This record gives sequence, structure tokens and C-alpha cells, in this order.
Amino acid sequence: MSTVDLEKYIIDIPDYPEPGVIFKDITPLMASPEGLHEAVDQIADHFKDAGVTKVMGAEARGFLIGAPVAYRLGAGFVPARKPGKLPREVYTQDYALEYGTDELQMHKDAVTADDRVLIVDDLVATGGTAVATAKLALQGGATVVGFSFVLELEFLNPRKVIGEEFDQDVFTLIKVH
Amino acid sequence: MSTVDLEKYIIDIPDYPEPGVIFKDITPLMASPEGLHEAVDQIADHFKDAGVTKVMGAEARGFLIGAPVAYRLGAGFVPARKPGKLPREVYTQDYALEYGTDELQMHKDAVTADDRVLIVDDLVATGGTAVATAKLALQGGATVVGFSFVLELEFLNPRKVIGEEFDQDVFTLIKVH
Repeated sequence: MSTVDLEKYIIDIPDYPEPGVIFKDITPLMASPEGLHEAVDQIADHFKDAGVTKVMGAEARGFLIGAPVAYRLGAGFVPARKPGKLPREVYTQDYALEYGTDELQMHKDAVTADDRVLIVDDLVATGGTAVATAKLALQGGATVVGFSFVLELEFLNPRKVIGEEFDQDVFTLIKVH
Repeated sequence: MSTVDLEKYIIDIPDYPEPGVIFKDITPLMASPEGLHEAVDQIADHFKDAGVTKVMGAEARGFLIGAPVAYRLGAGFVPARKPGKLPREVYTQDYALEYGTDELQMHKDAVTADDRVLIVDDLVATGGTAVATAKLALQGGATVVGFSFVLELEFLNPRKVIGEEFDQDVFTLIKVH
């Protein structure tokens, strides 16, 4: 068990971005040398025997934690980006928002059938972004080996949404009830 | 001298995003375990004695290389984000684009006068984004200790723009003439 209290680095912002919502700001955790190291190490340690070859994270905050986890695991990092950001041939995946849908894209050659992919993000809320990112990995023929998030908004039940599509390990560092 | 040829991971995209421009796609370097490790290690090794406490990178591709460099240096990572993305009080910095201006923002408490900041991005072209990011660090009272980029578009002369405002070390891994 870690002796570092990661939760102390998270700042609650009431009524942001809209009334009734409490925004969880993880930038203080990233800005802390101790917080960043501990979060990355906990995720990487948990998946150290999973044979991860690529970490995927969604634009933009998924890059913040996903890229150092990839580095620490000796894996590569593949960004899932918003439409129009990647210059070559892409796979596209829709996902539902509260109102309407959005899309994420991945370069077609970013993963292969030999890749074992870990999906990483700073926060999981409904699980929609995580599932869309994982489906991009599947479109590329890769195997998804797990999901990891710094913060899990348990009251939104993201494990149910992820579990409907994937039975892989979901590992989170801080749970918000 | 490294034995890893980082340049082989960069893909040239002619006429993207507009005719006459050659876009440099660094996503294959990030996706390669060897490429990511080598790029991060080269930057971190170069600045290992600079006393870096925070690495700053601009949204979104600056997060990709900046966050693992921060992790490797035992520093924290501070994102410079587009307006409206950060939930608390921010400093704002304008910078010139080819047509018009844009802004980057940083949380006011993200750095302090004790911080020694390294500015990292995947690519430096005109140098405008790098200078704006560094000026955010100055607004927070921190010291800027250097700049590092995977790719330097030398023909756009970014060192001149950076050098007009900062006399710190500029270290790049691949130079494009």
C-alpha cells in the first residue's frame, strides 16, 4: 500500500462547468513531482506483467497520464484524437455524449495484431470515452488488456458501461462515491 | 551519441494541412517503445543537472512528450492550455499566429518562485508557442531553465524568436533544414 495520499492533490470545483456538477481538477496532482510519480508508478506497477506494448489515451488529458505510463512500462503511446487532428488514414469511433455524439480517431497503422493495449485516462465518468478508445484499438486488430484511470466517478457507474463491452481489468487510483 | 535513429520514425506528409507545407508526423515516434524511450531519455539526460522542478508543455501535442520527460526528471508537469480549459484562476499569454493571435493559459498556482521550468514540445516551428508557454512560467514567478523539442524546423528560424526573449539553452533532437 502506498503512503502517498493522492487524493490531497485533487481540487474540487463546485458548479463547474455547470451548476450542480463538481469538477475534479487533477492538474495539481500532475504538477506535483511526488503526485505524478506515484500515480504513474501505481498504474504501471499494476500492469507490469500484462505484456503491454502500447498505451492509448484520449485527447487531451488522457495524454498527460498515458504518455508517462507508456514510458514507465517500456511501451509506446498512441493518441486517440478528435476528428481532423491526425494527418494520415484513420479509424473513427463514435461515442455518446449527454446530448448527441462525438468521435475519436486513431491512425490506422498505430497498432497491429501483435499489440497489447492498455487504455489510460485521468478520469473515468460515464466510461464512453474509454470504450471508444478501446474500440479503436480493436479496429486496428490489437488486444485490449485493461483500463486504468487516476479518478473514478463511481456514482456514474462507468464499470457497467465498460463491462458491457470488455471484461478486462479496470484499475483506478481514487474512487469518488 | 545515441545509436537509435529517431528520424526514421518521423513521417513527412506533403501538402498538409495546406499546399506547399510538409507536415511532420511524430506519432510513429511516440507509438514506438524504442522511439519514445530514446526521445524522452535524450531530453531528460540533457537537462538532468539543470534542477528542473516543473516541465511545461502546450496543448495538446506538448503533453505527449512533456509529461514523460517530467516523470523521467522527477519533476511535475504543468499544461499550458487553450482558453476555457482550466477550471481555476489563470494567467493568460497571447501569441501571434500566421493570421491573428491565439492565447494559452496556466493555473496561477501551477508554478511558484521556487520552480525551475523546462519548456518541452514535440516540434518547434516559429517559436511562438514556446515563448508564450515560457512567459506563462514567468508570470507565475518561476525561472525558465531551457527549451527542448523533438523536431526543430530550422528553416523557420525559431531560435531567433526564442533568443529575442530568452537566452536559455535550446536543445532539439532532430533538425529539419
